[in-house]
Amino acid sequence: MTERPIGVFDSGIGGLTVVRALTRRLPHENIVYYGDTARVPYGPKSPQVVRTYAAEDTDVLLAHKVKMIVVACNTVSAVALDVVQKRSRVPVVGVIVPGAETAARVTRKKRIGVIGTAGTVRSQAYDHAIRRVDPTIEVFSRACPLFVPLVEEGWIDHKATEMIAREYLFPLMLEKIDTLVLGCTHYPLLREVIGRVLKGVVTLVDSGEATAVAVEEALETHGLKNPSTLRPNLSFYVSDIPHAFSEIGERFLGQKLGVVKKM
Amino acid sequence: MTERPIGVFDSGIGGLTVVRALTRRLPHENIVYYGDTARVPYGPKSPQVVRTYAAEDTDVLLAHKVKMIVVACNTVSAVALDVVQKRSRVPVVGVIVPGAETAARVTRKKRIGVIGTAGTVRSQAYDHAIRRVDPTIEVFSRACPLFVPLVEEGWIDHKATEMIAREYLFPLMLEKIDTLVLGCTHYPLLREVIGRVLKGVVTLVDSGEATAVAVEEALETHGLKNPSTLRPNLSFYVSDIPHAFSEIGERFLGQKLGVVKKM
Repeated sequence: MTERPIGVFDSGIGGLTVVRALTRRLPHENIVYYGDTARVPYGPKSPQVVRTYAAEDTDVLLAHKVKMIVVACNTVSAVALDVVQKRSRVPVVGVIVPGAETAARVTRKKRIGVIGTAGTVRSQAYDHAIRRVDPTIEVFSRACPLFVPLVEEGWIDHKATEMIAREYLFPLMLEKIDTLVLGCTHYPLLREVIGRVLKGVVTLVDSGEATAVAVEEALETHGLKNPSTLRPNLSFYVSDIPHAFSEIGERFLGQKLGVVKKM
Repeated sequence: MTERPIGVFDSGIGGLTVVRALTRRLPHENIVYYGDTARVPYGPKSPQVVRTYAAEDTDVLLAHKVKMIVVACNTVSAVALDVVQKRSRVPVVGVIVPGAETAARVTRKKRIGVIGTAGTVRSQAYDHAIRRVDPTIEVFSRACPLFVPLVEEGWIDHKATEMIAREYLFPLMLEKIDTLVLGCTHYPLLREVIGRVLKGVVTLVDSGEATAVAVEEALETHGLKNPSTLRPNLSFYVSDIPHAFSEIGERFLGQKLGVVKKM
């Protein structure tokens, strides 16, 4: 059982930043990744549609006999985590609660900013999760729909990206936040430009990294940690292989993707 | 038969700019529109996936007993028009050929620029269609993946949009084009900023408007024109109704959408 893979799914390839965090923290765990690239993005779509897709994504991973499911997609974690939990008998970890708890621990002024897709922000899932830790914390959210296409265009450090980041983040700076949750798997790639716009006075919380810690804890709690010290298997499945998929994917994963199979 | 609706489909709501052009040119035709908003966008996806979706979209319209199908989506027109044609017994009009023929007629210097999604540009469908009219015309293409999200964000006249337009269009200006095809249904909304960047010396060709002319010709050729002078029925169907759908849709259509039904 412990040798079974951890299943990770996302609406597309953004979740590879979560896989990157997982492989750093848990270098001996086998991982099966599924990205629904044929229907990406989920962020602007309705909760109903996202819930339908989440159920189907869960089934893809369960067919691979995973020992745990990590919902790398913030939008799914925000509006459909219960769908995934109801469907699977294995433990399920989303990215919202770990990110929210880390932010709640880090903030000193109790003023946290959250950025994400339209779906994630509208759900207020981060707000609720943060206030569950400490109801006196104030949360200020902002949807940043252009960040995902900017990252996918590879404009990581482009002057247009900085201009757009400045516009998106300005209202949050006015609120004097001291902590900002990067509530979308694409955003860690914009860490530098976001940090520059916020002039280094705001702590950035990467939900993917927080999730890797939560996954390790969950594996230990359930006695599911792989005791092996061998090099693990990383398998990648997608519903579509668009042009330049591997190049873009490697930018997220931080290493070569290897063979990617289309379902 | 002539009273039957014209069927129009698109990957999302962008095709409403084509409906707008159709209602202006053919004010008495009934129209059924289908937007695949649950899987939008098609532009970055592989031709294989786009062909599968195009077949399904065609079936949705055929179920409404349409007398003609207009493929409003440039990406589908570029890589899957044959799929739609094979599936339907009614005439099929795509947006590529009308846009290409108009551009070929308009250019004086025989230097045409084409902008569109990654899928449309990579297919070279406009290049082939333009050279079929006149093989001595030179065509210069550029994918502009950020234009669609900028339009959907409503940043029609934003300084970031102008900066990005300048960067995308600069290589085409260097090629001294005198005509530019707006090869994506979203781009007519950026007509002003694109015109400003090109300093008014380039003629913009809206494929949607060119398509409305082609549809009128096809209706006449096939004896399908509706002789009625009554106010027509416009029906809108989508696969998902995301937040703010009607507001965004009205921006494209140029009038109130009325009731939109989810399939």
